[in-house]
Amino acid sequence: MGDDRLDNGSAGENNLDSLGMSLSRIVSFSDGVFAVAITLLVLSIKVPVLRPEVADRELPRALLHLSPIFTAYVISFLVVGLFWIGHHRVFGLFKRYDRGLLWLNLIFLMTIVFVPFPTSLISKYSDSRAALIVYAVSIAVSGLLLCLIMWYGVHDRRLVDFVDENEHLRFMFGYSSMALIFLLSIAVSFLNVDAAKYFWLVMIPSNFLIDHWLLVKLEERRGGRREGAA
Amino acid sequence: MGDDRLDNGSAGENNLDSLGMSLSRIVSFSDGVFAVAITLLVLSIKVPVLRPEVADRELPRALLHLSPIFTAYVISFLVVGLFWIGHHRVFGLFKRYDRGLLWLNLIFLMTIVFVPFPTSLISKYSDSRAALIVYAVSIAVSGLLLCLIMWYGVHDRRLVDFVDENEHLRFMFGYSSMALIFLLSIAVSFLNVDAAKYFWLVMIPSNFLIDHWLLVKLEERRGGRREGAA
Amino acid sequence: MGDDRLDNGSAGENNLDSLGMSLSRIVSFSDGVFAVAITLLVLSIKVPVLRPEVADRELPRALLHLSPIFTAYVISFLVVGLFWIGHHRVFGLFKRYDRGLLWLNLIFLMTIVFVPFPTSLISKYSDSRAALIVYAVSIAVSGLLLCLIMWYGVHDRRLVDFVDENEHLRFMFGYSSMALIFLLSIAVSFLNVDAAKYFWLVMIPSNFLIDHWLLVKLEERRGGRREGAA
Amino acid sequence: MGDDRLDNGSAGENNLDSLGMSLSRIVSFSDGVFAVAITLLVLSIKVPVLRPEVADRELPRALLHLSPIFTAYVISFLVVGLFWIGHHRVFGLFKRYDRGLLWLNLIFLMTIVFVPFPTSLISKYSDSRAALIVYAVSIAVSGLLLCLIMWYGVHDRRLVDFVDENEHLRFMFGYSSMALIFLLSIAVSFLNVDAAKYFWLVMIPSNFLIDHWLLVKLEERRGGRREGAA
Repeated sequence: MGDDRLDNGSAGENNLDSLGMSLSRIVSFSDGVFAVAITLLVLSIKVPVLRPEVADRELPRALLHLSPIFTAYVISFLVVGLFWIGHHRVFGLFKRYDRGLLWLNLIFLMTIVFVPFPTSLISKYSDSRAALIVYAVSIAVSGLLLCLIMWYGVHDRRLVDFVDENEHLRFMFGYSSMALIFLLSIAVSFLNVDAAKYFWLVMIPSNFLIDHWLLVKLEERRGGRREGAA
Repeated sequence: MGDDRLDNGSAGENNLDSLGMSLSRIVSFSDGVFAVAITLLVLSIKVPVLRPEVADRELPRALLHLSPIFTAYVISFLVVGLFWIGHHRVFGLFKRYDRGLLWLNLIFLMTIVFVPFPTSLISKYSDSRAALIVYAVSIAVSGLLLCLIMWYGVHDRRLVDFVDENEHLRFMFGYSSMALIFLLSIAVSFLNVDAAKYFWLVMIPSNFLIDHWLLVKLEERRGGRREGAA
Repeated sequence: MGDDRLDNGSAGENNLDSLGMSLSRIVSFSDGVFAVAITLLVLSIKVPVLRPEVADRELPRALLHLSPIFTAYVISFLVVGLFWIGHHRVFGLFKRYDRGLLWLNLIFLMTIVFVPFPTSLISKYSDSRAALIVYAVSIAVSGLLLCLIMWYGVHDRRLVDFVDENEHLRFMFGYSSMALIFLLSIAVSFLNVDAAKYFWLVMIPSNFLIDHWLLVKLEERRGGRREGAA
Repeated sequence: MGDDRLDNGSAGENNLDSLGMSLSRIVSFSDGVFAVAITLLVLSIKVPVLRPEVADRELPRALLHLSPIFTAYVISFLVVGLFWIGHHRVFGLFKRYDRGLLWLNLIFLMTIVFVPFPTSLISKYSDSRAALIVYAVSIAVSGLLLCLIMWYGVHDRRLVDFVDENEHLRFMFGYSSMALIFLLSIAVSFLNVDAAKYFWLVMIPSNFLIDHWLLVKLEERRGGRREGAA
């Protein structure tokens, strides 16, 4: 567990170094954890238990009653998918790793693996504010940890050679605004628990605005450079 | 989350680009999801609960009663296996990816991960039309999404360099006919629920016919070309 | 789903061919399935349910009562591990694949993924002959399918370039004798169910004898060649 | 299953040898097992069952009652994470493998896959000494097996070409002291079960001391060499 920074360089699969693993091994272990965690979400959907003689007649209604569970499944699947995409964006930038990244990544994965629990919770207690708070905090913590990992690696160019300022800002704004929206939904839940869930949809325009605003900012900077050059 | 198209080219594992991942990473994450989803199917087979004093005598009969569960397990395993093969055929053609493919693939995987639920449902309620409809719709949606992914990548050569027309047609006919057969089995289920399940076997001659018909069509086209050349 | 044989050659991960995947992808998907199936075995060990007020006093005895479950876990883990080793020995020899291998491998994996069920069954009904028969048949079928896959690829050099006769015989004798021992244990179970489980230990001397006998046979053949050359 | 030692050398993914697999395949299978085992830990956190009419009011208190379960989840996640790091450090040093390593690794993985069971046990019976003993023994056995694997490969340079004495000592002291601390916590549990759990925190200063002491020792040796050179 040395704390030297290790280059992944251009070497392939067998580039096992003094920490006993390469950056690509960390990514592939993380991928495995993501794949299992996202698949375990389906276990939160339980088959309804009905007496055999009424099953055929009552099953359609019983399935309709599962609709908050299906919604929770879809939301959690997309959220974990979004974190998987973000995880790859971060690790795609990193060229080395150190002991700190190893542990930050483990703690981040611990919050991802946890997601099936709050998903089951809001599936079962879809009207409960407590369940919603646990869910929102769980997602927000994952989002903030992902931003922390990005910051950890980019700060002082600890683990990167080069930073694309625009890409970096888009990442930080994207995932921290996601965390913020989930935290704000807790406040909304004190007005109405269902409204809090619809509030999560704010992520869609929010992402659109971040992309648009960054494009404008990038154009301005380019304009500024051109003027400076003239 | 840029929407530029990214080349996978001939680069290997470490070809991590501005979206933070390479095409091969998407495939290997999808493989992990498939592997977990197909293995979770076994969890739908529950060990029968019997009183200890009668277990030895009644277990054989209890196991025979599980036969619709075993059948559902075998069908779902083969269906998910068929989707896994199809997924690789699609991604084997693609040379780049974009944000649209990323999300289409996530949604497709969401339907694959879902399969253990309808499998448990038709295991438990093997006589129920509602259970059969949920199962058939779930499989049909997966099949149509896989065709959509193929179309998305091939249309305007968005993600491919070159299309083998014959291979493309065989894929589209194969998986859309599969979706169609599962949808038609819903109509059949209004006559008889068991007949609807046997109707799925139509897939075997259907695949044979598609392959045969395409072979004939290919021959005709070759003949046409030769005549044109003469 | 063409039935042409596809070369894996020396190309790497990205060697995606007209069937949409390379031999190494099939192996890595199979590895994922093995990894999940072997890990799901632990789910057959259920935490004993005790009333809180007596838990501290009765837990040790309750854990001792789990000993047939621990034994079943260890046996199944080692058996699946042995199949994993065998699967790699087979696919290590193969240089290409065809549609037949794809389906044989899927069916073999279906029996591997199934193992947690008979494991739970003999865990719960450790004295039941029916449970033992289901377990033994399940393992024997996996063993025979693995031999069938080997035979399929080696016969007429369908999927291999070269066969090491000695290695091939060792494999076939090893895994078919394993299947045979599990099938014979069914006969033993009609005398005594516990004796049938101890009978599985015959695998250890049996493997030793096969290795020894093959070594002798190999020496004889070498001797014969020398004489023929003289 | 020959017992010759096989070089992994610089060859890539397709270096499949007479044992039917390469060292990197063993590592990637182990990674899969680790990923599933670490993710299954979340299944030990069960959603509390409350009557619908009181759910909203009593859920917060029910969630607080889960705190020993959350603690067990976090501890097990970090412990399995530590073993994953250790596994890579070991296999990063190894250049070849033999039949012995294959089986030692399988047995080590069997103890890792087992961890969700003692985790559920101390989650459910957090005051029970028996549960704590099962947990502590389970972790200690994993730690000692990892040291055994390291010793097996390094002894007589069986599977390595070169040993960094300092790295080797740090590994052996690190993981055997971890095993020792878990074994000692059993003695502590006879005084107080809760104190035994806090005792596990001794790992933090212990690791610090080992690193510090080794650094001093390394400096001394360097000093000794300089004097010898002078």
